[in-house]
Formats: sequence, C-alpha cells, structure tokens
Amino acid sequence: MKCIEEKILKDGYVLNNDIIKVDSFLNHQVDPKVIDAYAQEVKREFADKQIDIILTIETSGIAVAYAVAQVFNVPLVFAKKTTSLTTVDEYYHAAIKSFTRNAVADVIVSKKFIKKGMNVLIADDFLAEGNAALGLTKICTEAGANVIGVTAVIEKIFQGGRSKLEAMGIKVVAGASIKAFENNKPVF
Amino acid sequence: MKCIEEKILKDGYVLNNDIIKVDSFLNHQVDPKVIDAYAQEVKREFADKQIDIILTIETSGIAVAYAVAQVFNVPLVFAKKTTSLTTVDEYYHAAIKSFTRNAVADVIVSKKFIKKGMNVLIADDFLAEGNAALGLTKICTEAGANVIGVTAVIEKIFQGGRSKLEAMGIKVVAGASIKAFENNKPVF
Repeated sequence: MKCIEEKILKDGYVLNNDIIKVDSFLNHQVDPKVIDAYAQEVKREFADKQIDIILTIETSGIAVAYAVAQVFNVPLVFAKKTTSLTTVDEYYHAAIKSFTRNAVADVIVSKKFIKKGMNVLIADDFLAEGNAALGLTKICTEAGANVIGVTAVIEKIFQGGRSKLEAMGIKVVAGASIKAFENNKPVF
Repeated sequence: MKCIEEKILKDGYVLNNDIIKVDSFLNHQVDPKVIDAYAQEVKREFADKQIDIILTIETSGIAVAYAVAQVFNVPLVFAKKTTSLTTVDEYYHAAIKSFTRNAVADVIVSKKFIKKGMNVLIADDFLAEGNAALGLTKICTEAGANVIGVTAVIEKIFQGGRSKLEAMGIKVVAGASIKAFENNKPVF
C-alpha cells in the first residue's frame, strides 16, 4: 500500500540495519488517518470473505486491530500477555516469542470469545518471524476456528513469517512489505 | 451515558462486590459499536475545547483512546509499561499502580510526542483510584502540556479518582459512573 510505504519513508528510521522504528505513527504515537486508510485496504483484500472476529495480541496490535474491526463491523479480541485478578475463566494458551523484546510471553485468549467454526482475521502492527501470528493460529486451531488471513501494517518479508503462513494456506496482506534494509533504509 | 450503562447491565458481571468484569466488550473482547458511541459522546462533552493529542496507557486503554482520537481527528499516544530494544529516545516517566493487578509499573512517554503548550485529553477504559490518570497528568505537567480532561468508559466513583482530578481543576467525563456495588450489581 502506497500510503504505508510513504509514511515509513517519511517518518520511520532504521536501527542497525535491523529494527525499523515507527513509533511516530504506529507503536507509541498512533496516527488514525494512516491506520484507518490501511484498514480500508484490508477490507478490500478480504471483501469476499465472511469474517467473524479480528484477533490480535497486546500491545501494539490493538489500535490496528480496532481499526480493522470497525471496517468489518465485528468485535476485536486481543490476546493478553499476563494474568490479573480478573482472570477467572478458562483460556487458550500459546507461548509467543517477541522479536524486539527477545522474550517469550504466555498469551491467553478466553474460550468465551473464540468458538468452533468462527472465521478469524489476525491483525497486528508487524509481521516478522511470524511468531505472534503462528501462536494465535495455534489458539484458533485448538478452538476449531478458521484463520481466514493474517494482516500487518508492516512486514519484514525476509524474516520468513509470510512464507510459514502461506505454507499453511493462510492469506497474508501487509500494508508495506520490507524486502531488506540497505544503508539503514527500507527496500520495498 | 445510557449506552454504556445498558451494556454493563447486559454483559458485565461483578466479582466479590469489588471488580466489574467487562471483558466481553471492553478489555479482552472489544465491541467497536459501543466504544465508538462512547467516543462520539466524549467529543460532544469537549466540543468547545482544542485537543491536540489523546493520551492513554497500555493495554486496555488503547482501543478506547483510538476511537476517541478518531473523532477528534488527532494522534493517540499510549504510554508504555516496559522498555524494549527499540527504546533509544528520552522519555518521561511515572510510577503507576494498577488496581486490578496490584502492581506498580514504570510507564514511559517519549519526549518527542508531548510538547509544551499541547492540550491533552487522557482516555482510558477505567477510572478507579485515578492512579493512571494522575501518573499521565504528572507526565503532561513535566512536559509543560495542559490536561484538558480525563475520560473513561467506566468510572468507579467511590474509589476517589474523579474527586482527586476535579480538585486539580480537571474535567472528568465517564461513560458510566458506578456509585457502588450492591449484591454483585452495579448501582449508577
């Protein structure tokens, strides 16, 4: 999507030819105009599909998934990384490794919200190694739900997430696909 | 707001006359129709004010603040609870105690995103003791920004957050104000 590529070139910057920092519009400050435009494109890509819920994982996926849930007119469910005093229900679990945080989190989704036969679209800010999407897919599979697709605002395609998901027959839609970093610039 | 009170009565439930569980529409599954209706009401309440950014704290505040940022047509900034490999900037800090988690988190906001003279509206899912709103207000004050108001989808008014904020001259707008719990039911 041109709008995301342009925003990355204008406001993103690359650390050590490895991590792209987009905290001015995506994962610390969030620009609703950019994310809403992305969500509209996602709707077009999945226009022929019945989607029942949008699934994401806290934290940076939530704003993105909310915008996508609005355009599909369905609820958003965000997987949680910790338990708290309010966690009394039964949950699906997945262990998900974060690329930027270099840590494994136990993420949970209440069994109330993902049901057998539901069509799920997974949405997130980033798709890199695919760990979050694969963990959420595992939860959907356990629930008997169908993962219709995975979408992310920014994909680092060289980290292999897309190919793992496509090998499972899952459609992947990215706002911008970064093929490589060269001289601390993204190459689309 | 009638729409929030009705949703709480329909889908919320109370644990031990103390914690209200609203994870079917607010803080695990999120219903965009309900949150968007709330955001429109918030816009009406602050219609005469210039708002430059919406400020919240991860995690459950993000979807709410995103909807509010959309109706004000401004960016959303969410304070972060942890540092990661991408945190290389300078940050404002506040120590914020979570009522439900019974823990203190160090939250940070990049100095890039809150500037002197900005008008800030703080938005969150819950207002209870006011710890999150007061911590974010401290950050705004340090930045020289003005807190125009605090809004939350659900307020537990008996826990004192509103009175502390109003004593500082800050306008508070809640989707639903819970005065008490009686027999595990909220009283508005």
